[in-house]
Amino acid sequence: MKNAEIIAVGSEMLTPTRVDTNSLWLTDRLNALGVEVVAKYVVGDDRGRLAGTIAQSLAASDLVLISGGLGPTEDDVTRDAVALALKREQLFHAPIAEAIEARFIRMNRVMPEINKRQAMVIAGAEILSNDRGTAPGQWIDTGGKVVMVLPGPPHELKSMFERECQPRLENMLPPVVIRTLALRISGMSESELDQTISPIYKKYENPVTTVLAHNGDMQVHFRARCASVDEAEALLSEIREQVDEVLGTRIYSHEGEPLESVVGRKLVASGQTLAVAESATGGALADRITSVAGSSAYFLGGFITYSRALKTLLLGVPLETLQAHGAVSAETAKAMAQGARERSGADWALSITGNAGPSTDGDEAPVGSVFVALAGPEGVEVQHRVWPASDRQRVRAFAGQMALDLLNRNL
Amino acid sequence: MKNAEIIAVGSEMLTPTRVDTNSLWLTDRLNALGVEVVAKYVVGDDRGRLAGTIAQSLAASDLVLISGGLGPTEDDVTRDAVALALKREQLFHAPIAEAIEARFIRMNRVMPEINKRQAMVIAGAEILSNDRGTAPGQWIDTGGKVVMVLPGPPHELKSMFERECQPRLENMLPPVVIRTLALRISGMSESELDQTISPIYKKYENPVTTVLAHNGDMQVHFRARCASVDEAEALLSEIREQVDEVLGTRIYSHEGEPLESVVGRKLVASGQTLAVAESATGGALADRITSVAGSSAYFLGGFITYSRALKTLLLGVPLETLQAHGAVSAETAKAMAQGARERSGADWALSITGNAGPSTDGDEAPVGSVFVALAGPEGVEVQHRVWPASDRQRVRAFAGQMALDLLNRNL
Repeated sequence: MKNAEIIAVGSEMLTPTRVDTNSLWLTDRLNALGVEVVAKYVVGDDRGRLAGTIAQSLAASDLVLISGGLGPTEDDVTRDAVALALKREQLFHAPIAEAIEARFIRMNRVMPEINKRQAMVIAGAEILSNDRGTAPGQWIDTGGKVVMVLPGPPHELKSMFERECQPRLENMLPPVVIRTLALRISGMSESELDQTISPIYKKYENPVTTVLAHNGDMQVHFRARCASVDEAEALLSEIREQVDEVLGTRIYSHEGEPLESVVGRKLVASGQTLAVAESATGGALADRITSVAGSSAYFLGGFITYSRALKTLLLGVPLETLQAHGAVSAETAKAMAQGARERSGADWALSITGNAGPSTDGDEAPVGSVFVALAGPEGVEVQHRVWPASDRQRVRAFAGQMALDLLNRNL
Repeated sequence: MKNAEIIAVGSEMLTPTRVDTNSLWLTDRLNALGVEVVAKYVVGDDRGRLAGTIAQSLAASDLVLISGGLGPTEDDVTRDAVALALKREQLFHAPIAEAIEARFIRMNRVMPEINKRQAMVIAGAEILSNDRGTAPGQWIDTGGKVVMVLPGPPHELKSMFERECQPRLENMLPPVVIRTLALRISGMSESELDQTISPIYKKYENPVTTVLAHNGDMQVHFRARCASVDEAEALLSEIREQVDEVLGTRIYSHEGEPLESVVGRKLVASGQTLAVAESATGGALADRITSVAGSSAYFLGGFITYSRALKTLLLGVPLETLQAHGAVSAETAKAMAQGARERSGADWALSITGNAGPSTDGDEAPVGSVFVALAGPEGVEVQHRVWPASDRQRVRAFAGQMALDLLNRNL
């Protein structure tokens, strides 16, 4: 099995608050190709030190992936450090400079002179195109060992790796069949989930099991590494059968699909539409729904009624309901959902009202208390939860998850 | 100024889901002592490779901090690797073995024989006591340069560093004061920003300058390290004066405050209110505004009019406007902002309409094209930008930044 080392470049990643996340994504992709990551580095914008690290990594491992430090400024030392480590020259590549300039022109801007630096290429390197930014990457084969130079911004790096590096790596590595069963689960806590499934996954060394939890949304990945597709699929269906039995409908996807996509697919299939009315989440639910490309096919829009007055004005929540029960109540949630459904003309409407803290618009509901309602063709349903009131953003995220879960169970 | 490198040991930290957080905490503590962290490493449980990394770090820097790999098993290679790198012997230290054994006895357990390995000490090392676990740490002074060997579990590492390392470091380091000027900037590209300010920051070795860019939002941090508070503050105000002159109103905060908070503070101060009307961003702008605790004081709510029909129904955008100019147009953006302002009763209303891709609800506007309008007491203003159409989420984020920037300039 081939070994890889990953070097992240940038002094900003040596501060107390920043973490290099590119290496996590790259590790996942490399593992899937059967490559093991044996060391990771974060090095500041220091040419000499970076060159030393690159040379050491290349001596020890087969693949060296370097991310970042490809910008146009003096601080961007990666190109120079690679040249130094490999003892190769850099050449000016006119077509790259032209492509960068064209990019600036498309944005109605003039290319600053310093951006020409981004057109310097190590002698003998293959150029890796960047379809998300100006800095091209480089693939340098040094007699069996490979140095990959990739941009730092994650969206640029991911696109480049997938389009340019993955096919080249697949070509040079022995075939390994990796299949992943990616379950997505809602409606239970991480420890409940782990207690439920650990008797199953502990029986197996292959597949490798990973449990991920994020704001009430859980994923379990079973990654099987086998010699053939048949073997991998047989192994995963053996696992799937056991897990389905203990988790049942709490699994909302077997294909790793996010809840907002599952819901969207179901709405498209039934030709139905959705609207939202948000108070505590202030747009976060609609943001999540519309993060799905193509959501305009079923999502009509929504109401963000942060103030009491707008709940009445835009959604027709009766003043008496607000006064008698408060803005954070089952009655208000129901009236919001019904109002949103009627006024938007959607088949379904979700509402969220709650107290994410710290202030409450004169309400008495405790921080962390959230009501979610769903108005549909057959009436309105409401759910209530109180989360430990520690974190405003977490309460908001949990509330959105709860709303989508409620809709999904009704579709 | 002293330099440090941090090495985390453990193959489990080379998986796609685990991050080394000890180094973030250590960086914070070291920075506060005036020590700069110039490189970080994660190395698997491999004696030879780890020894190589330690030797390289010690050659390049003054302080080397190693965490993890001090357990009793074969996998725990840190002690051996340090001995190898420093070319020193290890000696059995009976009092440590006795202390570990006593700890087992207190927990009513018998010490496994392998735990004796944890009593091996590098020749010449000072022993660092561990009040949270079995593995002691080591402090090895090699003629001015120091290697610190620390346990991996964060609560053990933190306690040991605070009790044992910090006092030793304070003794050997000159007293230092650190002050940071954190600017936030909007309305220019990262390379424009760098070209504008680099003639200033390049004149100084102290403060250290860091430029961060995220979806059109930029930060510049100047970190001054001085012998006294007065000196640090004088230095930063000298920098501030020069930067203010070249950046002017593109600086929206001198205290590192995010744009949504700056806008919120201004609205509170003037007693004014805000509403939004979002199409392309689908709630993301309202989400960002309401992520600020206390935003209910000025944010009334908003309209997410994803479909054309809702633009007319909820905001009163004339059908003729949509037909003549399209949903993604200056005219629609203006009508949306005016409609949101009138129907919510807010003093200010921001609207966003654009094409974040990939589908367009029958519109002809190119992907990446965004119109932002602001309706206020003195009329309505509209701005237009086209971003490279590569990434839906980025177009949405840029559009939100553009909207908040427009509001901020008008407050």
